[in-house]
Amino acid sequence: LQITVKELAAKLEARFEGDGGFIIRGIGALDQVSSDQVIYASGRKNFLRAVEGGCGVIITRKAFKETGKALILTDDPRGGYIFCLGFFAEKPVFQAGSSAAVVDPEAEVASDAVILPGAVVDRGVVIGSGVVIYPGVYIGRDVKIGAETVIHANCVIGYNTEIGSRVLIHGGVVIGADGFGFFEDSEGRQQKIPQIGNICIKDDVEIGANCTIDRATAGSTVVGEGTKIDNLVQIAHNVKIGKNNIIVAQTGIGGSVVIGDNCVIGGQVGIADHCVIGDRVFIGSQSGIQPKVLDSGTSHFGSPSRPLSEMKRIIAATHKLPGFMEKFQD
Amino acid sequence: LQITVKELAAKLEARFEGDGGFIIRGIGALDQVSSDQVIYASGRKNFLRAVEGGCGVIITRKAFKETGKALILTDDPRGGYIFCLGFFAEKPVFQAGSSAAVVDPEAEVASDAVILPGAVVDRGVVIGSGVVIYPGVYIGRDVKIGAETVIHANCVIGYNTEIGSRVLIHGGVVIGADGFGFFEDSEGRQQKIPQIGNICIKDDVEIGANCTIDRATAGSTVVGEGTKIDNLVQIAHNVKIGKNNIIVAQTGIGGSVVIGDNCVIGGQVGIADHCVIGDRVFIGSQSGIQPKVLDSGTSHFGSPSRPLSEMKRIIAATHKLPGFMEKFQD
Amino acid sequence: LQITVKELAAKLEARFEGDGGFIIRGIGALDQVSSDQVIYASGRKNFLRAVEGGCGVIITRKAFKETGKALILTDDPRGGYIFCLGFFAEKPVFQAGSSAAVVDPEAEVASDAVILPGAVVDRGVVIGSGVVIYPGVYIGRDVKIGAETVIHANCVIGYNTEIGSRVLIHGGVVIGADGFGFFEDSEGRQQKIPQIGNICIKDDVEIGANCTIDRATAGSTVVGEGTKIDNLVQIAHNVKIGKNNIIVAQTGIGGSVVIGDNCVIGGQVGIADHCVIGDRVFIGSQSGIQPKVLDSGTSHFGSPSRPLSEMKRIIAATHKLPGFMEKFQD
Repeated sequence: LQITVKELAAKLEARFEGDGGFIIRGIGALDQVSSDQVIYASGRKNFLRAVEGGCGVIITRKAFKETGKALILTDDPRGGYIFCLGFFAEKPVFQAGSSAAVVDPEAEVASDAVILPGAVVDRGVVIGSGVVIYPGVYIGRDVKIGAETVIHANCVIGYNTEIGSRVLIHGGVVIGADGFGFFEDSEGRQQKIPQIGNICIKDDVEIGANCTIDRATAGSTVVGEGTKIDNLVQIAHNVKIGKNNIIVAQTGIGGSVVIGDNCVIGGQVGIADHCVIGDRVFIGSQSGIQPKVLDSGTSHFGSPSRPLSEMKRIIAATHKLPGFMEKFQD
Repeated sequence: LQITVKELAAKLEARFEGDGGFIIRGIGALDQVSSDQVIYASGRKNFLRAVEGGCGVIITRKAFKETGKALILTDDPRGGYIFCLGFFAEKPVFQAGSSAAVVDPEAEVASDAVILPGAVVDRGVVIGSGVVIYPGVYIGRDVKIGAETVIHANCVIGYNTEIGSRVLIHGGVVIGADGFGFFEDSEGRQQKIPQIGNICIKDDVEIGANCTIDRATAGSTVVGEGTKIDNLVQIAHNVKIGKNNIIVAQTGIGGSVVIGDNCVIGGQVGIADHCVIGDRVFIGSQSGIQPKVLDSGTSHFGSPSRPLSEMKRIIAATHKLPGFMEKFQD
Repeated sequence: LQITVKELAAKLEARFEGDGGFIIRGIGALDQVSSDQVIYASGRKNFLRAVEGGCGVIITRKAFKETGKALILTDDPRGGYIFCLGFFAEKPVFQAGSSAAVVDPEAEVASDAVILPGAVVDRGVVIGSGVVIYPGVYIGRDVKIGAETVIHANCVIGYNTEIGSRVLIHGGVVIGADGFGFFEDSEGRQQKIPQIGNICIKDDVEIGANCTIDRATAGSTVVGEGTKIDNLVQIAHNVKIGKNNIIVAQTGIGGSVVIGDNCVIGGQVGIADHCVIGDRVFIGSQSGIQPKVLDSGTSHFGSPSRPLSEMKRIIAATHKLPGFMEKFQD
């Protein structure tokens, strides 16, 4: 794959300076770039780092310095860079079919779907057009998978799960383990509460590697359209997550939690059972949300959490506390 | 599957009101119920939500309102609901055998055990009666698995592991990775301490999806009878966990920790190496337990943790700290 | 496997007392030892526990008490114990080849490499001498794996990953899921930023079970030589980790973080995107490191973190805060 500076500028509807015939053969990162690669600079500092790093071409707002390098000039350098990432992305090509997989005769698989070696598809499963199932994936009985969804290697999709279209599930994800529900009997033993619900993953969801999403006790655990989930996130039974949320790695969401739309939830956050979280809520990393309602548009931080601005004042105060106490102990 | 109101009331040894012939075809959740489903209400508020949600039948202590719906009246509505969950649970039926799995000729597999396609069973393994091994599971050499145990897809059970009867292991669990033990040599390199012990999982344990339980350096890592472990929990080498504990998701238990019986350990808790925890200990979510003894019957919270009631006072005080300091800065 | 006291003492260049012909048949742990096993004692207390536990032989600095047991006397009892762990470790023996695996004809596999049943090796993969790939592993296209590396069951190694020699990867690890990168479009939907970089795992790295290491947006995510990573650790896109670091379980390292050499990072730590961490840095468990530079040789603790000694004073002060405030409310 390659593209000239002139061609790339045209694609981005941008101007260019320097050698329009310069051939770009790949994408660099600020700390790792070679002389045939393009990079973007969001400002002067990164522009200078890019030049120093020896890149071939810089997508930038302007020339922060004379460099002799070809430049692509645009008001949205990051957007230009994202375009380039897409341009240079290798699109794996598969032959449709499932010749080295184990597919139950009662499963219904679209003729252009790809089921790679070692995958196991149970009875009653319906797999839509253009779906790719990587090796080692197990699809339990009666699972429905929408068009263009990709499930990476060694995922487990439990029975009755419903997955929408264009969903991207990374390796090792387990969807459909039992919800964690027990009651203590009179002899102090934990007795299992049967978990007979399912999981609905809506269109355009992305789920990171080794996440776990439990089936509902009854009803459904739901992940809404366009929500993006990072690696190693835990989603408990009967959780309802809305649309277009960002949930960063290693966060845990307790049973029956309700989350609205367009929230940003940081990494390693814990949300206790039955919390109700509105739209556009921001939760800082490592926060612990205890049973309560978080109103739409609010920000929260800390364990246990408080509104973000209040928690910042609390933290600043605790940092001054040793000195403050000393003064009073005189 | 279906049951009438009258039949269900009889099973629960409960009274009913309304149409005893009404046919129940499933279980609802408070936020997701249809007109042929049963639901339970723990009190007035949930009773009204259930009615509003359009359920068919309510299991309840009493009619909190005239509804025209069939009611099942019992002092233990939740118990009735749990009975219904069991009644409506689909029990997967498998054909015994292992025709599409890879089973070493030196493994000993009960004739009624089920080993599903793509599972790999190594030499010296002993698999008891009624065991179900899902696709993609790897059972290492000399592993012993007791009767009626179920191991879900893509688990890894390392060599020499001993698993009891009626154990339920969800997908993606890794039992038997090496304990995390190294020493720094004179050149600053980390040298591995061989990890040659094993893991014993006792009867009636449940282990959540993508958990990791490491083998002991020497001796055994032990999870005691009836202990229930949620998803993504880490249990390090040489840990000894007693009976009937509840360990919530994403908790990490450090090397050589000892835990008694009937404890409740919240989510995302960290327990440092060598802690000793008694019976009936409660640890709040996200707590960090540092090396020490926690006496039986005590409760703990915070990172680093303190006794629960003390930590609540500390947290309340820190929340008032900014205002407190301001007063003194006048 | 067995060794006499006299033979073991010779191997350790140590003295022995008691029956030199006593046959040692295994290794015990302090809480689990039998009469034909050896154990080590780091001091008087453990020596007495070892004697009480009924071990056969003790490796110790000196006889803290008359016991009648054979003793091996050395200035480094732990070193002697580690030698014994290596001596008694079972070394699995495999037949080279890949007869029950699915190996693409365009993959290049060393003749003495072992690819166990159910593994899938994609096109363009290069597998070095002595490599062992356990069942259920998926190796994506164009992955390179150096000599003597071992990849345990059900790992996923994404396309273009480069893995060095003598690397040990435990079960369920996912290397090469997409980095977590999105931008919000004008309609509030999250759009994916293509992730087209790769991952480089250098020589002698160990990676714990169910870890996740994401591919770079562009360039490489790097784990340096000799670094040891515990279970369930998350490493985001474009992270650069140096040599000989210890990273304890359930820690999460955010995008583009740079870590030097010989650091010790505790369990459940979170490191925010773009942090830069020097050499020989210590980070206490459950700490939250926010964007900033941590200088070489420093120690840090808390969420959000402060230098360790300062945080200890802050914590001590907050513990005294309720009493302190009460005094002033009189």
